[in-house]
Amino acid sequence: MSQRTGILLVVSGPSGSGKTTLCRRLACENEAHYSISCTTRLPRPGETNGTDYHFLSREQFLSKRENDEFLESAEVHGNLYGTLRSEVIQYLQSGQDVVMDLDVQGAELVRKCEDASIRCALVDLFVMLADEQELLKRLSGRGTDSAEVIALRMKNAIEETRHWPEYTYRLLSGTQEEDYTRFKSLIIAERLRVSRIS
Amino acid sequence: MSQRTGILLVVSGPSGSGKTTLCRRLACENEAHYSISCTTRLPRPGETNGTDYHFLSREQFLSKRENDEFLESAEVHGNLYGTLRSEVIQYLQSGQDVVMDLDVQGAELVRKCEDASIRCALVDLFVMLADEQELLKRLSGRGTDSAEVIALRMKNAIEETRHWPEYTYRLLSGTQEEDYTRFKSLIIAERLRVSRIS
Repeated sequence: MSQRTGILLVVSGPSGSGKTTLCRRLACENEAHYSISCTTRLPRPGETNGTDYHFLSREQFLSKRENDEFLESAEVHGNLYGTLRSEVIQYLQSGQDVVMDLDVQGAELVRKCEDASIRCALVDLFVMLADEQELLKRLSGRGTDSAEVIALRMKNAIEETRHWPEYTYRLLSGTQEEDYTRFKSLIIAERLRVSRIS
Repeated sequence: MSQRTGILLVVSGPSGSGKTTLCRRLACENEAHYSISCTTRLPRPGETNGTDYHFLSREQFLSKRENDEFLESAEVHGNLYGTLRSEVIQYLQSGQDVVMDLDVQGAELVRKCEDASIRCALVDLFVMLADEQELLKRLSGRGTDSAEVIALRMKNAIEETRHWPEYTYRLLSGTQEEDYTRFKSLIIAERLRVSRIS
């Protein structure tokens, strides 16, 4: 009787929050398309072009950026990363939901996007831990990192976590199953939103 | 680490949409408090004051309405019905979610309420059937009503269904289990909303 446009679910959260696991599982269960970024960094062993990333030369990337083809882009440790606007919009217009795992700067760029189809689609979520004790536990969990590395990751995670009030939704991480139930509920609920039904 | 205020989930939909079953089950599973209305009609056999309704005399009801104590009220077949604002706010402020089953006029009154704690809490959902064939099937399902009665109920249901675009969310009814999963997802997702976290 009626169709809807897709949801663009942008997920942020510090390292250790479990956000990537949530996004991957949603994609695995075919609930949403996991957006594939472009990058100028070289493929690591086992990474496939078009599955893990779209691998571009720096020249190709800069030319696309010049043409305003990226929904968001950033330079991290000398490598460029970005999401193609056209790819996202194509999914949304065909009624498919897209999930993106972005840092707070990336999420802010998407939020500022003036494209009506992105604005209507956007749902943003911040995944975080209930307290710093819990965060420390998760970040030191692997037991392979030095105290210094863990301290730096803690500092970055605490800094990133300060941004949660900028988001529409926030998930306080509990067990993996609890988190996923709530995460999936968000996309099920957003599918009922009248403003996306045409 | 932080508390949230409750959600006021207002559910409308035509007769046969299954909205009351959804609201009752949510309350049964202790996910939300099912708001108890006041009414001037006499208790039917088996109905208990304070459980099914708050039974009031017409005089008591009118005095409360005069004092603007109702969040919404209406007269149906000569009887007055209404929801006490104080009762709803008390639950919301203690962080408990409230579910209300209201017709489109009642939902509109709640939507127009200027009380900040109601406005912040409100989530409105319209439950409907995918098409008129399905509606007719549900309304004639009991097999005990005359063709005339069914025709009148169809007319009212079609009229009521026209209001779905006034709501934020819409649920197209499928099976009872599908409906309840989506209904419950809505309240789980709304609990993640940052604007209700203090």
